[in-house]
Amino acid sequence: MKTVTVNLGERSYPIFIGQGLLGNPEFVQPYIQGKQVMIVSNETVSPLYLEKILPAFQGLNIEAVILPDGEQYKTLEVLNQIFDGLLGAKFDRQATLVALGGGVVGDMTGFAAACYQRGVEFIQIPTTLLAQVDSSVGGKTGVNHALGKNMIGAFHQPQCVIVDTDTLNTLPDRELSAGLAEVIKYGLIDDLEFLDWLETNIDALIKRDPEALNYAIARSCQNKARIVSLDEKESGVRALLNLGHTFGHAIETGMGYGTYLHGEAIAVGMVLAAQLSQAMDWLSQEDVQRVVRLLKRCHLPTTIPSTMTADDMWQRMQVDKKARDGKVRLVLMQKLGLSLLTDQYDLTQLHQVLTLGQQEMTT
Amino acid sequence: MKTVTVNLGERSYPIFIGQGLLGNPEFVQPYIQGKQVMIVSNETVSPLYLEKILPAFQGLNIEAVILPDGEQYKTLEVLNQIFDGLLGAKFDRQATLVALGGGVVGDMTGFAAACYQRGVEFIQIPTTLLAQVDSSVGGKTGVNHALGKNMIGAFHQPQCVIVDTDTLNTLPDRELSAGLAEVIKYGLIDDLEFLDWLETNIDALIKRDPEALNYAIARSCQNKARIVSLDEKESGVRALLNLGHTFGHAIETGMGYGTYLHGEAIAVGMVLAAQLSQAMDWLSQEDVQRVVRLLKRCHLPTTIPSTMTADDMWQRMQVDKKARDGKVRLVLMQKLGLSLLTDQYDLTQLHQVLTLGQQEMTT
Repeated sequence: MKTVTVNLGERSYPIFIGQGLLGNPEFVQPYIQGKQVMIVSNETVSPLYLEKILPAFQGLNIEAVILPDGEQYKTLEVLNQIFDGLLGAKFDRQATLVALGGGVVGDMTGFAAACYQRGVEFIQIPTTLLAQVDSSVGGKTGVNHALGKNMIGAFHQPQCVIVDTDTLNTLPDRELSAGLAEVIKYGLIDDLEFLDWLETNIDALIKRDPEALNYAIARSCQNKARIVSLDEKESGVRALLNLGHTFGHAIETGMGYGTYLHGEAIAVGMVLAAQLSQAMDWLSQEDVQRVVRLLKRCHLPTTIPSTMTADDMWQRMQVDKKARDGKVRLVLMQKLGLSLLTDQYDLTQLHQVLTLGQQEMTT
Repeated sequence: MKTVTVNLGERSYPIFIGQGLLGNPEFVQPYIQGKQVMIVSNETVSPLYLEKILPAFQGLNIEAVILPDGEQYKTLEVLNQIFDGLLGAKFDRQATLVALGGGVVGDMTGFAAACYQRGVEFIQIPTTLLAQVDSSVGGKTGVNHALGKNMIGAFHQPQCVIVDTDTLNTLPDRELSAGLAEVIKYGLIDDLEFLDWLETNIDALIKRDPEALNYAIARSCQNKARIVSLDEKESGVRALLNLGHTFGHAIETGMGYGTYLHGEAIAVGMVLAAQLSQAMDWLSQEDVQRVVRLLKRCHLPTTIPSTMTADDMWQRMQVDKKARDGKVRLVLMQKLGLSLLTDQYDLTQLHQVLTLGQQEMTT
């Protein structure tokens, strides 16, 4: 078992990573102040793991809310189901919410905790690779709006995060791949050594080798924890974690939530970021091919969907949280393993990248 | 013009109180960081004041969202109209929201600001007495849920509050009276001198004498600012501001949002709190009669609606943010001008107060 700490002063918390952690009270009970526990999960995850985690909460007053499964349900309307459950059970400000599931469950549970009675505590138990390496760490919570992803939300840090890697055994291949997109992202942002390691070990990860998975998850969490500790509210360096996301969010909203998995859209987005970086002479063609090859080995998409035009993409990219007074800022790569946030790109080059982005790159 | 400061370290802000402040850029422009301004108002207030405030924002990119008027629209669903407006206008994290209206507009605008892109800034321009003396100050924001009032929300402080007392000239009598309930509350909590002043000057307030109104508003804001500065997130003394509110919220939800104005329900709630305090031998009958007489002079209700049973009241009171692990805490009065938060009351006595609460008290 490894512990990674997210250092945020009073709001610091541990991430426990290992096998067989579910159901063990020692990882949750010290982090619960009251008697009321509301487990939030979804229709897919709850039959697999809800009973398994119950022993961890023994002695407490446990209730559960089960949400429909999918990004298309990450809305204010479905969020209200959590409030219905909390108020129906007469839970008060000492209640603790527990997110059991993937990124959607984690983001919604965290946001519900941020807003219920103006703020209660919560614990993350992520069960997908994507949630384990990314969304469950760092306190970003929220829901989508028809016009933009994660546009409504709050910064609200959990009390602790429990990553039981055994839960990956039941994860569909497609979701494992989507999670690997976010793992690869950490290599591209500022950890070239990890990128090299991934190129060597990607097949082991796809085969769900436990040792490889534990290493990749812990290293991803360390990377994320370091960046979040430097900049909790994303006034600077934390924006680098959005590599590929401005492009990716455009694909997710353009195709309709749930058509592309978040990690799949981010894979395409990282390729587009790499291609624009190449157009600016920061990356070589070989660098870009390296990115594309690694993503393809994970069976991830690397081109813009054929039904989306460059103009569709651009329109949707303009609604982005990194925009400042109307100017869209992008995370690009100065070299492999060194990303930066910038608005100093050429709109004509961007348009060209978006226009050619439907074409498969030769690698 | 008077300025009252809410001292909250980095989040400190001024409340400007006076006549003829609307439309003056000097009270808003120093508090706006970007170029994008979204004014949120309602169908009643916007025809009266929207044009009047525009000169204050000259040089900025101004948009407006107009909500339906009434507590029954203080919901997550209507909140989404603000997000629709912000995203439709492609507003980013540098945007400033401006609440122009009463408590409902202020609470919803503040909550939208707390959540939009995980937090943008906002300014309060309250146009009802209730909003001017209470809801626009202190950073409590949120919406109602069918099962409880203000159950979904955030603490989010405004950049400044502009109280133009000229706006009270268009306020319906019933709403003026509802605002006076919250003014009287400050006297009962811990300002006996103000309670005495109110008994002498209540007729001047009801006749909208500008000098009396300015004094009462400034003194109310000073009281609120002092308490909020001591306890921003309501872990202690701030709960005293909820005198009458646990009873009042039960009436508001029980009768259906919008039937009783918030201040009207709180007036009844303060009478019930006084009666329970009398049952505990803290107040004399004459003390309780003093409270009832003052509220009646403002034409406020002082008894539980005849359609609500004691049991209805109690059921609804149990869903309350001041509850702790299931136990409902109430703000009661140890003597006039000295309130406290306690769960040390007798349930039988409470039940008796709720049972007799429909009866008019002789004063």
